Amino acid sequence: MKKISLILVFLLICIFHVQAQYLAEWKSLDARQTPAWFRDAKFGIFVHWGLYSVPSWATKSNADGFGSGYSEWYWQRLMEPKLKIHKEFVAFQEKVYGPNFKYQDFAGQFKAELFNPDDWADLFQESGAKYVVLTSKHHEGYALWPSAESWNWNSTDVGPHRDLAGDLTKSVKEKGLHMGFYYSLYEWFNPTYKSDVNKYVDEHMIPQMKDLVTRYKPDLLWTDGEWDQSSETWKSKEFLAWLFNNQSVSKNIVVNDRWGNDTKGKHGSFYTSEYGQGTVSDSHPWEECRGIGESFGYNRNENLEDYMSSDKLVHSLIRVVSKGGNFLLNIGPTADGRIPVIMQQRLKDLGKWMQVNGEAIYSSERWSSANKATTDSSVYYTKKGKDLYVICSEWPEQIAVKGILNPKRVTMLGYKGVIKTSQSKGKIIISAPIVTPKTMPCNSAWVFKLEGVL
Amino acid sequence: MKKISLILVFLLICIFHVQAQYLAEWKSLDARQTPAWFRDAKFGIFVHWGLYSVPSWATKSNADGFGSGYSEWYWQRLMEPKLKIHKEFVAFQEKVYGPNFKYQDFAGQFKAELFNPDDWADLFQESGAKYVVLTSKHHEGYALWPSAESWNWNSTDVGPHRDLAGDLTKSVKEKGLHMGFYYSLYEWFNPTYKSDVNKYVDEHMIPQMKDLVTRYKPDLLWTDGEWDQSSETWKSKEFLAWLFNNQSVSKNIVVNDRWGNDTKGKHGSFYTSEYGQGTVSDSHPWEECRGIGESFGYNRNENLEDYMSSDKLVHSLIRVVSKGGNFLLNIGPTADGRIPVIMQQRLKDLGKWMQVNGEAIYSSERWSSANKATTDSSVYYTKKGKDLYVICSEWPEQIAVKGILNPKRVTMLGYKGVIKTSQSKGKIIISAPIVTPKTMPCNSAWVFKLEGVL
Amino acid sequence: MKKISLILVFLLICIFHVQAQYLAEWKSLDARQTPAWFRDAKFGIFVHWGLYSVPSWATKSNADGFGSGYSEWYWQRLMEPKLKIHKEFVAFQEKVYGPNFKYQDFAGQFKAELFNPDDWADLFQESGAKYVVLTSKHHEGYALWPSAESWNWNSTDVGPHRDLAGDLTKSVKEKGLHMGFYYSLYEWFNPTYKSDVNKYVDEHMIPQMKDLVTRYKPDLLWTDGEWDQSSETWKSKEFLAWLFNNQSVSKNIVVNDRWGNDTKGKHGSFYTSEYGQGTVSDSHPWEECRGIGESFGYNRNENLEDYMSSDKLVHSLIRVVSKGGNFLLNIGPTADGRIPVIMQQRLKDLGKWMQVNGEAIYSSERWSSANKATTDSSVYYTKKGKDLYVICSEWPEQIAVKGILNPKRVTMLGYKGVIKTSQSKGKIIISAPIVTPKTMPCNSAWVFKLEGVL
Amino acid sequence: MKKISLILVFLLICIFHVQAQYLAEWKSLDARQTPAWFRDAKFGIFVHWGLYSVPSWATKSNADGFGSGYSEWYWQRLMEPKLKIHKEFVAFQEKVYGPNFKYQDFAGQFKAELFNPDDWADLFQESGAKYVVLTSKHHEGYALWPSAESWNWNSTDVGPHRDLAGDLTKSVKEKGLHMGFYYSLYEWFNPTYKSDVNKYVDEHMIPQMKDLVTRYKPDLLWTDGEWDQSSETWKSKEFLAWLFNNQSVSKNIVVNDRWGNDTKGKHGSFYTSEYGQGTVSDSHPWEECRGIGESFGYNRNENLEDYMSSDKLVHSLIRVVSKGGNFLLNIGPTADGRIPVIMQQRLKDLGKWMQVNGEAIYSSERWSSANKATTDSSVYYTKKGKDLYVICSEWPEQIAVKGILNPKRVTMLGYKGVIKTSQSKGKIIISAPIVTPKTMPCNSAWVFKLEGVL
Repeated sequence: MKKISLILVFLLICIFHVQAQYLAEWKSLDARQTPAWFRDAKFGIFVHWGLYSVPSWATKSNADGFGSGYSEWYWQRLMEPKLKIHKEFVAFQEKVYGPNFKYQDFAGQFKAELFNPDDWADLFQESGAKYVVLTSKHHEGYALWPSAESWNWNSTDVGPHRDLAGDLTKSVKEKGLHMGFYYSLYEWFNPTYKSDVNKYVDEHMIPQMKDLVTRYKPDLLWTDGEWDQSSETWKSKEFLAWLFNNQSVSKNIVVNDRWGNDTKGKHGSFYTSEYGQGTVSDSHPWEECRGIGESFGYNRNENLEDYMSSDKLVHSLIRVVSKGGNFLLNIGPTADGRIPVIMQQRLKDLGKWMQVNGEAIYSSERWSSANKATTDSSVYYTKKGKDLYVICSEWPEQIAVKGILNPKRVTMLGYKGVIKTSQSKGKIIISAPIVTPKTMPCNSAWVFKLEGVL
Repeated sequence: MKKISLILVFLLICIFHVQAQYLAEWKSLDARQTPAWFRDAKFGIFVHWGLYSVPSWATKSNADGFGSGYSEWYWQRLMEPKLKIHKEFVAFQEKVYGPNFKYQDFAGQFKAELFNPDDWADLFQESGAKYVVLTSKHHEGYALWPSAESWNWNSTDVGPHRDLAGDLTKSVKEKGLHMGFYYSLYEWFNPTYKSDVNKYVDEHMIPQMKDLVTRYKPDLLWTDGEWDQSSETWKSKEFLAWLFNNQSVSKNIVVNDRWGNDTKGKHGSFYTSEYGQGTVSDSHPWEECRGIGESFGYNRNENLEDYMSSDKLVHSLIRVVSKGGNFLLNIGPTADGRIPVIMQQRLKDLGKWMQVNGEAIYSSERWSSANKATTDSSVYYTKKGKDLYVICSEWPEQIAVKGILNPKRVTMLGYKGVIKTSQSKGKIIISAPIVTPKTMPCNSAWVFKLEGVL
Repeated sequence: MKKISLILVFLLICIFHVQAQYLAEWKSLDARQTPAWFRDAKFGIFVHWGLYSVPSWATKSNADGFGSGYSEWYWQRLMEPKLKIHKEFVAFQEKVYGPNFKYQDFAGQFKAELFNPDDWADLFQESGAKYVVLTSKHHEGYALWPSAESWNWNSTDVGPHRDLAGDLTKSVKEKGLHMGFYYSLYEWFNPTYKSDVNKYVDEHMIPQMKDLVTRYKPDLLWTDGEWDQSSETWKSKEFLAWLFNNQSVSKNIVVNDRWGNDTKGKHGSFYTSEYGQGTVSDSHPWEECRGIGESFGYNRNENLEDYMSSDKLVHSLIRVVSKGGNFLLNIGPTADGRIPVIMQQRLKDLGKWMQVNGEAIYSSERWSSANKATTDSSVYYTKKGKDLYVICSEWPEQIAVKGILNPKRVTMLGYKGVIKTSQSKGKIIISAPIVTPKTMPCNSAWVFKLEGVL
Repeated sequence: MKKISLILVFLLICIFHVQAQYLAEWKSLDARQTPAWFRDAKFGIFVHWGLYSVPSWATKSNADGFGSGYSEWYWQRLMEPKLKIHKEFVAFQEKVYGPNFKYQDFAGQFKAELFNPDDWADLFQESGAKYVVLTSKHHEGYALWPSAESWNWNSTDVGPHRDLAGDLTKSVKEKGLHMGFYYSLYEWFNPTYKSDVNKYVDEHMIPQMKDLVTRYKPDLLWTDGEWDQSSETWKSKEFLAWLFNNQSVSKNIVVNDRWGNDTKGKHGSFYTSEYGQGTVSDSHPWEECRGIGESFGYNRNENLEDYMSSDKLVHSLIRVVSKGGNFLLNIGPTADGRIPVIMQQRLKDLGKWMQVNGEAIYSSERWSSANKATTDSSVYYTKKGKDLYVICSEWPEQIAVKGILNPKRVTMLGYKGVIKTSQSKGKIIISAPIVTPKTMPCNSAWVFKLEGVL
C-alpha cells in the first residue's frame, strides 16, 4: 500500500509539474526562457489594420511627440482632441464625412475586397522577415476575427464579413513564418471597460485573448494599451500562467512586456521600444517597432518625404540588431486589403539586402566590445560563434577595428574578391574593395566578415 | 437592552418586508395585483422600430401562418430560410443590396433623421391610446438605447447616433401616457447566447433589463423571444422579484406573460395574444396585439389592401375590450423616423371614435352575460357600474338584448336625440334613431348606453 | 398629258393637305378642335417623380404662396434661397447630407427598386381616372426616359437604370387609360439654356419633345416652365404644327396652354389652373391640378394634417367638373418606386365615389344656369343631354333648384328608393331620403339626377 | 477710285493674312513649325484621371496586347467584353459592386477630397518634367472641367464638385511648366455620337475643344479616340485652322497626330507612340507615352512587379530622347486625389537623375551617326552644338565610340574627377572612373560629355 501511495504522490507531482510548470507569479513567469526562435528571427513585420484604415488619415507631422501622425488614433482624436493639432482630425472628419457620420459608421466601408493573404505572406517572406504581428484588435475594440465577445464589432460581422486574422494566419504559417497577434488590453470607449474594469477583464478581455490563442495558435502575443491599469487589474499573471502551462502554444509562445503599468522593461519574453525611443536591454531580448512612415495605420496624408528610404530602413535594422534587438517594421494596409506599393518596394529592398547579408543578422548576437572598437557611428557589429561581422552603413573606404587581430579570413558578404587588411597598434584596418555598380554586392550597407577572431 | 433588541428586530422585519415583499417564486409573484392603470387603459400603441426598418420588407402575405409577412424577422429569414416563401427574402436581399451587403450593414442606413418624438406622442395621444410599448430591443439584439451590453450595436453608437428610447420616453410621459418597453429575451445570432446561455443571461440580458428599468422607469415591460428557454434558465423569477420589490417602478410596473416556455397564460400581470389567435382569459388581465397591416416592422411591400380599414380596427378594439382585454395596436415607423401617414390616418380615426365612445371603453369591464344576451355577432357589450354599453359594429336598425329590462335611461353616445325602446319577453328592444351624415355621431360603430340595468 | 397634270396637281394638293393641315401660326393651331376624349375624361392622375423624390422634403407650409411646400423645387431652393423659408432647404440639406453632397449626387440614390408599373396602373384605374400625366422631365432636367439629349442625366443611365416613362406608359395603356407627359421647357441650371437659349431649344428641347412623342405616342403633352421665354423663342408654334400634322399621335394628342409667357389661357387644347387659383374658362376646355397635400413631389415633411381628406378631394373634383374643367390630381411616388399608402387610400376613395356617381361626371357638361339656380355654395351642377345632375357636397336635407320643373324622374345615384320632390314658385324642391349607414349610397357627396328637365 | 481700290485690296489681304495664316488644309497646317519649347522639353507627365479612378481596376496582365491591363477602359470592358480576359471585368464588377450598380454610379464616389494641385505641380517640377498633359475627358465622356456640353457629366457637377482641370492648370503654370490636355474625340456610349456623328462633332466635340482652349489656354492638345472616323468627319482641319490662327494660344500650341483614322504619323506638331510600339520619326518631332505600370488609369490590381523600376524608366527616357523623341510618362491618381507614393518615388528618382544629367537631355538632338558608333545596345547618344553625350545605361567600364576623335574635353556629368581616354583605329576609348557609393554621381545611367567633337 505504501508503495502505491508513493507512486501516486509521484504521479501527482508529475501531473502538477506538467499542468502548472509556471505559477501566476512574476518570479515564476520570469524564469521561463524566451523561446530561441524569437532571438534568432531578428526581423518581423507589424501589420496595423482596422477601421482606422478607412479614413486612413492623420496630421502631416508627428513632430509633437504626441502621436498626432498616428492614423490608428483617429477615433480618440475625434472624441478627445486635446492638442491643437488633434483638432485637425475633427476638422477633417467634418469636412470629408459630414456632421452625421461617426467613427463607427466606417465599419460599412471597411470591405477588404482585394485582400489576398497569400500575396501578403509571399511579400513578407521575400522581405526576409521571420515573423508577422497583426493587430487582432486595436484600442478601438474592433476585432479582426469572429470574436464572440465583440459581436457585431468584428470583421466577420460588419464590413469585410471575413475572418481576416484567420485567413492571414493560415497563409503566413504556410510560408513557414511565425504568426503573432497584437492585442490591445484596453478599449477607449468600451462602456464596460469604462464603468467596470473587472467585469471587462473577466468577461471580455481574458476570454478574447484565450480565444485568440486557442483558435489560431500564434507564436507571439503583443499586448498594448496596458498603461491604463496595473497588471494586477488586468490579471496578467494569471493569464500568462495559463498561457505558459500546457497550452498547445506554450512551448513556442513569446510575449512582450506590456502587461500593466508596472511591467514594461521588467517582465515578458521581450521588452519593447518604439521609434528608437530607448528601453533597450543588454541582456534581455527586446524589440523595436516603427512604421515605414510616421504612422502605424495607413495614412493617406503621408507623401514620399514622410516615408523612410530603403537605406534608412536597412540602417535601422542594423542598429537594432547590433544592440541585440529585433526589428519589427510596420506596414499599414488599405481598407480594401492592399499593401501600398511603396511599402512593397521597401520590404523587397530589405529582402534583397537580407539575401546578401542575412548571415550577419539572423541568429547573430550583440558584440559587447563594440563600443570600444570604433568611434565611427556608421559602423555596427554583430557576432556569431568566433566570427565578427562589421556592418558599415556608409561605404567603408577604410575601417579600423580595435582589439581585433589575426582573422582567419576576411570577406565582404556578397563580394567575391579579396579584402585587403593590415594591422597596427592593436587594431585591424580593413580596406574596401574597388567596385563598380556591376560588382557591388548590395546597396544601403556592407558587411565585412572577420572569421575566427572571437 | 432587551427593548432595543426588540426594536431592532421590529425594524429589521419592517425593512425586510419593504425590501422583499415578493419572493422569487411564482406563488409570491402571482399574488401581486396588476396595477389598475393597465386594466383601465384598454388601448395602447405598439412600436416596432429597429434595423429591420431599413430593408422594411417582407413577403406579401402572412397567410402561411409562419410570419412570412413580418419584416422584423427579415434577418432570420436571410440566415435560415426554411420555407419556400422565406427564400424570397434572400432573393430580395441579393437583388436589391447585392452579394457583399449583410444585415448588419443596414445599421449605417438607419438614420432617424426626421424623428420627432413630440409629434409621435401627440399622435399617440390623439389616437386615444393610454400607453406606448416600444421595441427597446428585438430578436436582432440591436438596442434603441445606449446599452453598455450592446456596445456598437445600439442606436447611439451606430446609425441614428441618438437615444431613441430615451427621447421617446420623455415625450410620451410628458403627454401623460404610460411608457413601456418590449424586450426580446433571446437574440437569434448573439454568439454568447448561442454558446453559453447562462453567461448571456447573467452578463447581458439581466443587466440590460435592469438598465432599461432604472434608466427610463417604464410602467410596462413586454418581454418576448421567451420560448427558447425555461423561466428557470432566463432567471425570470429572480428578475421579477427584483422588479416588484422597492424599485422606483415597483408600484406601477406591469409585465406580460412571456418569461419562459412555461409561463405563457400562467404568470405575469397580463396574458398575451397576437392577431386574435386566442389565449384570452375571463378573469386575468390580457392584451391582444396586432399590426395595422400584416407586419409589425414597417413593410414597404404592403399596399392599401394589406392594411386594415379604420372600421375594422375599431371593431377589433371593441371585440377585445368586450372580452375584458386590452388592444395593443402596432405601428412600424420608417428608418428615417416617420410614422407613415396611412398609419397616422388610422390612429386619428380611432381617436375620433374614442372621443365619442371612450366612455364605453376606458375602465369598462366585460359583461359576463353577453353570450346569452344576443345572437347577433355584430353586437358587443361592456359594463361600468350599473350601466351597460351595447356596442354595435353594424348600424343597428333594431337590437334586442335579453335579460335587460327597465333602464333608467337609454342614449346613443354622441347623439342628442331620444332613443326609442320597447320591452317584450324579457328583453329590451332598442331602435336606432334616424340620422343623416350631419347628425351621425361617429363612424365604424355605435354605442347605446343603458343606465341602471345591472 | 393635261389630265395627268391635273391629277398630279390634285394629288399634290391632297398631300399638302395631309402633310400640313395646320400651319405654325396661332390662328391655324387654335382652329384645331380639342379631341373629345379629353373633355369626356374629367379626371386624371398627375405623377411627379424625379430626383427630388430622393430628399423628398420641403418646408412644412406652402402658405407663403411661393411654393415653399413644393419638394420638386428643392434644387432651386438650395441654389437660390431667396426667401427666409427657402433657406430652410439649405439648412436641411447640410444637416442631413453634409457639406460635400450636392443635388446631383441624389441620382445614385434614386433606385426605383420596388417600382411595379402594373400596380400603379391598376390603382389609377381603380381611382376612376381616365388619363395619367407623368413628369417625363421636370425643371431639374433629369429625364425619366433614355433621352439621348440628357445622356447620363436620365433614369436609364444613372439611378434606377430603367426606362421609367416607357414602362409606365405600357402599363397605363394596357389598362385602357390615356397616357400623357409633363415636360418642362426650361431647365434651371442647364448651362446651354443659360448661355444660349436658341441652341438649347434647337439641340435639346425640341429633339427631346419629338423623341418623347414618337417613342411613346402619348395622348397628352403638358408643358411647363414656359414663363421664362416667349413662345417665339421656344419655337412652340413650329413644334405644335409638327405635332398636329401627320404624326401618329396627331389625331388624339391634347396639349395644354404653357407654350411661352404669352400663351397661358390663350392657346392650347386646354387651359390650366393650379390649386384653385383661377384661370378658368366658360367655353374652352380647362384643367385644374393639385397635390393631395401641398407638394407635387413627395414630401416626407407632410403629415396627415397636410393631406386633403377624401371628402375634400371629392369636393374639389365636383367643383372643377361643374365648371366645365378637368381635375388632375397629383401623387408623388417615393424614390424606391412606391405610391404612399395614404395616397392609395385617397385614390381608392375617389374611385369608390366615382363607381356610384361617375355618370354625373364623365362626359358631363357645365350647366350655364347654375349660378341662378341655387345660392347654397355646397351644391353643384352638371348636365348631360336633357338631364341635370345636382351634386351636393353636404347632405342635402332639402334642395331647391330654381328654373327647373317637372322632371320625368328624380333619383339619387346609388340609392334605390324613391326621392320626394315638390314644386313651388318656379323651383323644384328635392328632399333627401332617409338613409342609414347600410343604405347610404356613398360618402363625401350625393347626386340627384333630374331627367328630362333641360 | 482705283487707288482706293488697290489700298482696300491690300488691306484686305493684310487682314486676311492676320486672320487666317493657316487654311483648313493639311498642306497649310503641316507647314506650321512645331513650337520650339516642345522639342526642347523632352520629358512630360501624362495624367489619367476620371471615373475609372474609382473602380481603378484592370486585369493583372496586359500581355494580350488588347489593353486588358488598362483600367481606363473599364467601362468599355463591362459593356462589350469581347475577350475572355475582358469578362473578368464583368465578374469583378458584380462581385464588388453588385448587380444594380452601373459605371455611371461611380460618379458619386469620385470625390478628390485630398486633391492638392500645388503638391502635384511641385512633384512634377521635381521630376524634371517640363510639361503636363491631363485627361480633360477620356472615352467615357466625363469632363474634368465645367463643360456646358457635358452637363451633369463633369467634375464640377457630379462627384468632386470642383474644376479639376482648371485648378491643376493654375498650379502647373505657376511652376513655369507647360500645361496640356488630353481630349478624346469619340465617346464610347454617347448616344448622340452613336446616332449622329455630325451632330456630335458640331454641337458637342468642337464646342468642348474650343471651350478648353479659350478657357485654360493650354500649350498642348493631345487628342485621342480618333480612329473611329476620318479627319473629315471630325472636322479636324477646320478646328486646327481655328486653333492656329489668332487665338491667344496660337503661337505656342502643340498638337499631336490623332485627328482621324488618316492622320497618325502624317499630320500634327508631333507624332505619337505608345509603350515603345514604334511610329518614330527621324525628322519630325515625336513622343512616346507609357505608364509606370501597365495601365494609364490607376489600377489597384498592380503590385510592385507590375511597376517599372526607376532604372528602367531612366533607360526608357534615354532611349526615346536619343532617337529625337519626347518621353511622356503617365501617372494615375486615385479617386481621392492623391498620387500613389510609389509613383512619387519614381518621379523623384527621375528628377534626381535629371538634376545631374539634364544637360544631356533638355534641348538635345538625336545624333544621326549613333548607329555606326557603337554596337553596345546599352549605349545611347545625344548631341548639342559641337558636343556629344554618350549615355550609358550600364556601368561603362570601357566605351569605344567610332568616328569620334580629339575631344576638347571629356567629363562624366556629376563627377568631378578626370576621365581617361585613349584613341585607336578611328575611335575614342573612354574608361570609367573608379568610384565608390560616395563619389558616384547618380544611379541608373551615366553620361560622358565629349566637347567639341561634332
